Amino acid sequence: MFLEREKIMTQSARLMYASTSADKDILWLTKFQAPDAFIALMHERKKIAVLNRLEYNRGKEQAEVDELICSNDFYVSDEQSPSISEIILRLLRRYDLQEVTASPKFFAAIYRHLVENGITVNFANPLFPERAIKTVQEIEYIANTQNAMEKAFAGLVVILSESEIRHDGLVWHQDTLLTSEKLKLIFERELLESDCTCEATIIASGEQTTDPHCDGSGPLLANTPIVFDLFPRSKKTGYWSDMSRTVCKGKLTPQARNIYHVVREAQKLGLSMVRPGQYGHEIHAAIVSYFDERGFMTKRVNDKWEGFIHNTGHGVGLDIHESPSIGTKMDELLVPGNVITIEPGLYYPGVGGVRIEDTVVVTRDGYRNLAKCPKNLLEIE
Amino acid sequence: MFLEREKIMTQSARLMYASTSADKDILWLTKFQAPDAFIALMHERKKIAVLNRLEYNRGKEQAEVDELICSNDFYVSDEQSPSISEIILRLLRRYDLQEVTASPKFFAAIYRHLVENGITVNFANPLFPERAIKTVQEIEYIANTQNAMEKAFAGLVVILSESEIRHDGLVWHQDTLLTSEKLKLIFERELLESDCTCEATIIASGEQTTDPHCDGSGPLLANTPIVFDLFPRSKKTGYWSDMSRTVCKGKLTPQARNIYHVVREAQKLGLSMVRPGQYGHEIHAAIVSYFDERGFMTKRVNDKWEGFIHNTGHGVGLDIHESPSIGTKMDELLVPGNVITIEPGLYYPGVGGVRIEDTVVVTRDGYRNLAKCPKNLLEIE
Repeated sequence: MFLEREKIMTQSARLMYASTSADKDILWLTKFQAPDAFIALMHERKKIAVLNRLEYNRGKEQAEVDELICSNDFYVSDEQSPSISEIILRLLRRYDLQEVTASPKFFAAIYRHLVENGITVNFANPLFPERAIKTVQEIEYIANTQNAMEKAFAGLVVILSESEIRHDGLVWHQDTLLTSEKLKLIFERELLESDCTCEATIIASGEQTTDPHCDGSGPLLANTPIVFDLFPRSKKTGYWSDMSRTVCKGKLTPQARNIYHVVREAQKLGLSMVRPGQYGHEIHAAIVSYFDERGFMTKRVNDKWEGFIHNTGHGVGLDIHESPSIGTKMDELLVPGNVITIEPGLYYPGVGGVRIEDTVVVTRDGYRNLAKCPKNLLEIE
Repeated sequence: MFLEREKIMTQSARLMYASTSADKDILWLTKFQAPDAFIALMHERKKIAVLNRLEYNRGKEQAEVDELICSNDFYVSDEQSPSISEIILRLLRRYDLQEVTASPKFFAAIYRHLVENGITVNFANPLFPERAIKTVQEIEYIANTQNAMEKAFAGLVVILSESEIRHDGLVWHQDTLLTSEKLKLIFERELLESDCTCEATIIASGEQTTDPHCDGSGPLLANTPIVFDLFPRSKKTGYWSDMSRTVCKGKLTPQARNIYHVVREAQKLGLSMVRPGQYGHEIHAAIVSYFDERGFMTKRVNDKWEGFIHNTGHGVGLDIHESPSIGTKMDELLVPGNVITIEPGLYYPGVGGVRIEDTVVVTRDGYRNLAKCPKNLLEIE
């Protein structure tokens, strides 16, 4: 479910208005973190930002731009506060721009104001295709987040190993009942020590695993899949990483174990296809076929979706989901420097859900896996 | 720097397409948390959501809507994945809607597609004015976040009390140098125990305090203002709270102490004006005048802004900054149930910055302060 990719039709200036939490393009371009929306313009290789009085001083220190303008400089005489649409129009007129390119998620009300005033606004998605090609430093940032995450996850595996399954079918650690919430707290606490934040963390067991975005709650169930989908973000650098592992405390049912092995093979297949020149949708199609051929169909049964009900993967960077997509979207050609996930999964009510996910860097001749964590720790005694 | 408020011109259906992290209207309406954008429509008091396959099952459990549609139901024959603009157009046609109202930050590319296909799209900001009037439950959620925050802050004050100022002019606690980073970690760790997350935390001292959004780094300086601007969000409920306190380890300079007392009086003045029927911009104007009359002017000196360089306050809820604004924006009439901050501040390079902020509920005859934390703990021995 993506917006159509629209080609950059012109070499026109690229215009942004967003907070850095809502839109990472502006953060990527200016390196300036701001809680409220501000204006940025990329014009003839020059980066321009417009900040209000509150942010202007800080912008001079922190924004990596060629020109910084205070929005007050666009006020006419003793105007109180012109609308942001009007300030943007005046900015474009200052640079004599009749045409700009914006993200499809640019503010519609500002778009309308610009168009009504004779500006041509094109859309490009992504606005900066070069964002998908990570620098060495960006890859290091993602790897750092990944490493912090794996260290914290290793702690959870130790807890599961030290735990025991009691007669109630639940998992106990040092006389405490293990719950999804408890493991999440331990995980996120550990991540905080590495200055990472977790927007959400999925630790789900039993039937909860059949919903890929169910974050999990209540006691962990033994002898069922436990899905860990871990995606912290470094607060310092802003870069995410993403990993999913499915384990079990005890023994899986034969059906669940079967699903695990099929997903594991599908993930191997997906990874083996990662290389420059490969299209994302071809990797996805190969995995869909792999599942279909083995009888793991994706369908709607009693108005519930089951099977492989999501994409194979996505880019990771300043956004947790960014270009390139490894799904049904066409024209997503892999190139060296892309950082993507490969995360097939199968979900069947009554049996359970399994997802295995790595974040990998596309290299000149294949890929480098940022995840070091093994995938054979399926069943923990 | 706000978008102009646009009146809701019609009773037309309200249309949203957003992730819940980027836009809280859709979360407020549907109560459905989703990492990727989805569609929602409020039509004739009926809430409708459109979710993709991945979210559809979970939506049936968690989305508080009257009708839930799977986006696949809008696919024609064996279409792979129509654009989201096209799905939205088909949704509007299903309900025979020629006209809708959207937020000014609605996706511009979708707006264009709808307009090109004959749909009239009006803008309303806020899209749901009723969001600014909190229910008893919402106020309780905000108060819970506030209470967790104050508990964590109290821990920091204890640390400052137990600390000593050494000959280096720095603050030491149990033979460890206190830094902004260290106090932030202790604060955020404590908040995590209450299931709260901190998007950012400002703990800044010395000259760093002259920039209201500088989050602070390095050793805490004694005998200077230390600004704590604390704004955690409950991960469970999604509601924020916001409080700023300025303290000092040691003794402030006479100029800094003077600023503190003026800001303290300005905050009292602001709070005393909070009641139903009051306009936000009048409170702001009163504080600006108060500062001006005492010689604390807001101006640009050597291209740096100093004085009172931000608004007096803002609404707090699912967004940390939401309606109503207590600033230059007109027509922001306070009504019972509004939850707002009152946070005047003064910032002078070479002297320091001071900000004092409470989050309060507008009641029938005034306000109720959600912050219990005293404001007289200026200087800590």
